[in-house]
This record gives sequence, C-alpha cells and structure tokens, in this order.
Amino acid sequence: MNDYTKQICEACSIDAPEVSEEETSIFLKENEGWELSDDVKFRQLKKIFKFHNFLKAQEFSIKLGQLAEKEGHHPTILLEYGKVTVRWWSHKINSLHKNDLILSAKTDLIRKEID
Amino acid sequence: MNDYTKQICEACSIDAPEVSEEETSIFLKENEGWELSDDVKFRQLKKIFKFHNFLKAQEFSIKLGQLAEKEGHHPTILLEYGKVTVRWWSHKINSLHKNDLILSAKTDLIRKEID
Repeated sequence: MNDYTKQICEACSIDAPEVSEEETSIFLKENEGWELSDDVKFRQLKKIFKFHNFLKAQEFSIKLGQLAEKEGHHPTILLEYGKVTVRWWSHKINSLHKNDLILSAKTDLIRKEID
Repeated sequence: MNDYTKQICEACSIDAPEVSEEETSIFLKENEGWELSDDVKFRQLKKIFKFHNFLKAQEFSIKLGQLAEKEGHHPTILLEYGKVTVRWWSHKINSLHKNDLILSAKTDLIRKEID
C-alpha cells in the first residue's frame, strides 16, 4: 500500500502531470470513503466526514484549513451541523495531481485527531 | 428599515411561523448580496463573501461558526480559497424563520470585522 501520508506535496504548474486513472483507482480502493465527485466535470476527490455536533465539525475544518495553508494547496470545505464535505483537486490542471492524493490521505489523519 | 442585527433569535419549533414573502422581499432589498437560493426547493438565504486569501476566508468562517454555536442555529458554510458561501434556513420548518433574517444580518456584521 502506498502511504501517501508520508509524502510531501510538490509545486503544481499548469503542465504538471495528472495522476493516472490506475493510481486513482488504487487510491480509492485503499482509502475508505473517498470517491470521485459525480457533480463536477473534472476529476475531484470527495469525502464526507460525520461528527457528533457542530463544534467537532468546525474543529476538523479549522485543522484542515491549517494543513491546506501550510501546504499551499486548498480544498473546498463544506461545514454543516455534524458534517464536513471535503473536495480536493488541482485548479491549475483542473484534475487530480499527486498532491491531491497526498492531502486526501492527510485529511484522514486529521479526522483521527478529533474525538 | 428593520434592523435585524438588534434582534435576538427565539426557539424554533416544527410549527413555528415562516417569515412572509413580503418580509423576505423587504429583507432582500435592504440587505445587499443576499438572495434566495435557486438550487434548493425550499426558501433559503444565500450570500457569497469574497476575501483576499484563504486565511481571511477561514477567519470569517470561524467567527460565523462561533455566532451559530452561540445562537444554537447553524448555517452551512462553504469555505473556498478567498470565498465563503453562507446559507441560512430553518431545518425544522424547511423554510425561512425570522431567526434566519436575524442571523443573515449578523453575518454581515461579522464580515465587517474582517479586514
């Protein structure tokens, strides 16, 4: 299993390579809950995280925002009562870059930090 | 002009009254940027707030979450790079309650606190 949580993001330029469909497919099998969004026309990773209340959901959102800011790569974060929907993709290539797999895996690590 | 920022929320029950179409219409005229969402089948107030960067957008989201938690009424908050989309409605009546007008107006006050 490819441990993306141990990898670091690299600069993403407009001609950066997309991750292959094969690599994406393996990622989806190995990382529970992530799926390709069916409501956008490009490849985007999406996962819904559930929480007991709003405060826990917000705590997760804040930590995820701190990770995004540190990595210089930002997801969209939809915060609702007890629920956060996270979407990762690379705007510059309008598709999935390896960075998105790395940060999706790191998003799961952040989830584990919240009770 | 009805200053909703000076009003306080009341408990909302399943048989609580919706705000009238007239009151909603006046609110929309007097409170710039708010609109009725066109992507849901019930009445919901929506506004997009722009920011210079992710950190400012996140700061706004956090303050808005604090207000929501204090008032015991929660919007959905979509945080993107430099942009936050806020939606207020009352789940119990699946429509707009006066609380939503009050909290939309208070959302605008929070926006003014961010540089």
